[in-house]
Amino acid sequence: MISRIAILGTGLLGTSVGLALRAAGFKGGITGWNRSPEHGQVALKMGAIDSIAADPLEAARASQVSVLSLPIYSTLDFMEKLAPVLGSEHLVTDVGSTKRIICEAASRLYNTPERAAFLPGHPMAGKERGGALLGDANLFRGAVWLFTDDPEAQRSPHSAELVKGWRQWVAAMGSKIIDLDPVRHDELVAWVSHLPQFTATALSALLEDEVGGAPELKDVGGRALREMTRLGASPYSMWRDIAHTNTEAVESALLALEQRLAYLRENLRTPELRDEFEQANKFRRE
Amino acid sequence: MISRIAILGTGLLGTSVGLALRAAGFKGGITGWNRSPEHGQVALKMGAIDSIAADPLEAARASQVSVLSLPIYSTLDFMEKLAPVLGSEHLVTDVGSTKRIICEAASRLYNTPERAAFLPGHPMAGKERGGALLGDANLFRGAVWLFTDDPEAQRSPHSAELVKGWRQWVAAMGSKIIDLDPVRHDELVAWVSHLPQFTATALSALLEDEVGGAPELKDVGGRALREMTRLGASPYSMWRDIAHTNTEAVESALLALEQRLAYLRENLRTPELRDEFEQANKFRRE
Repeated sequence: MISRIAILGTGLLGTSVGLALRAAGFKGGITGWNRSPEHGQVALKMGAIDSIAADPLEAARASQVSVLSLPIYSTLDFMEKLAPVLGSEHLVTDVGSTKRIICEAASRLYNTPERAAFLPGHPMAGKERGGALLGDANLFRGAVWLFTDDPEAQRSPHSAELVKGWRQWVAAMGSKIIDLDPVRHDELVAWVSHLPQFTATALSALLEDEVGGAPELKDVGGRALREMTRLGASPYSMWRDIAHTNTEAVESALLALEQRLAYLRENLRTPELRDEFEQANKFRRE
Repeated sequence: MISRIAILGTGLLGTSVGLALRAAGFKGGITGWNRSPEHGQVALKMGAIDSIAADPLEAARASQVSVLSLPIYSTLDFMEKLAPVLGSEHLVTDVGSTKRIICEAASRLYNTPERAAFLPGHPMAGKERGGALLGDANLFRGAVWLFTDDPEAQRSPHSAELVKGWRQWVAAMGSKIIDLDPVRHDELVAWVSHLPQFTATALSALLEDEVGGAPELKDVGGRALREMTRLGASPYSMWRDIAHTNTEAVESALLALEQRLAYLRENLRTPELRDEFEQANKFRRE
């Protein structure tokens, strides 16, 4: 029943969604829009979309499903703009990394029998660098795609069918679907995604200051260094909105890590160091 | 001129040295000794050594080169025990991860014309788990092998030749040899090896406490989490001696990271966050 999809935002994720839909056998139209037109051109050349939309709102109106693959604040902007021009025959979904604020907007603007449906999504997949050129039909294969849908959403039968249909396409792209409460989602990703990212950023920035210019650096750094700083390459443009929309949970997680590092530092020569290693070992055994 | 090598400590590194020597074409005898005899048996079955020594001091006396592949304090113990029983026809070398304290012992106990030579080494290779079973003939291929030799060492012509010969075998195992001052070595590895390890340990231990029991954890954690906690599996037994013998440099590095994380935490919603990301990006560009 889904014959036309609009991808608003053809960066890494949007382009990968288009490529993965094609790889999964989607035969309908895929129209794309991007704020920087050159990324739209790349997505078109790669076959992720088959046309470029001049007007994103028009493209959404002409499609059954609109996929917002944009930073969080741009997603919120589009949610505001799309709600009044779409109706019960439409579904809007997103790929944003924090979900509480998006779910609040969804229950305010979507999910009544007269309005479009909104299905909040978060594929746990990405690369440390963005851009259409890195788009990958297999990006979601084996990855988890989280949904934080509102079980109380009052949808038209038509848009409820679109929700089901989109979930089927996500499964067809190779993802494992998990449903989660949005507040629990933001709390969990603060620990398992945002804390690792901000730790890698702080570590990489510190190392740049301390040894970035050392001529021996290239030689002495091994796999441990490469791995612990890989995420240091992540762009601010993507993480700013995450820092702004999950601030409290990220603050708590960072503070807890600071305290943990201080404890370890104070115990480098005491038996407590053994307990820290054993606790860390446990995390990796599970 | 090296026809017999003793490997004292047949864990991951010792076993890998034996296998790599064979792969590089070493045809002489390789005798092994290990405190836990079962690891010696594994190394023997894998072909890393061709005999097991009952007495490590005897084995060292009967070899031209002894490779100490042991934790730092055990290396220091053996340096003490071997110095009086070896002479100018012997070379002792090691693979320890901190070098200052070992170089101090070397200039006290070795490297006179009458005594054995000691060449302090540190291959930048390893795995997050140890043990003979993980021994790998290719572990050192493409890796850097650091030496922190004393340029003033007064060696017999014979033991000076053995030093040259061992360096050639290290190159033959596929390593790139780099020479470094021991104090500079310990300072650099505190930043690029020890800080990443202790950060991964603190992060993994914290996550075990906070979300270790969460049923959604397996689903929500992605590549970033796996990578940033891989070193959480590292054993205390190996890192204790590093924490004890490079304490001050590691303390400084940990404190600096705590401060950097606090700064980032206080700036999650300010433009300073951009600067931190850009500084981190720079580290990864080089």
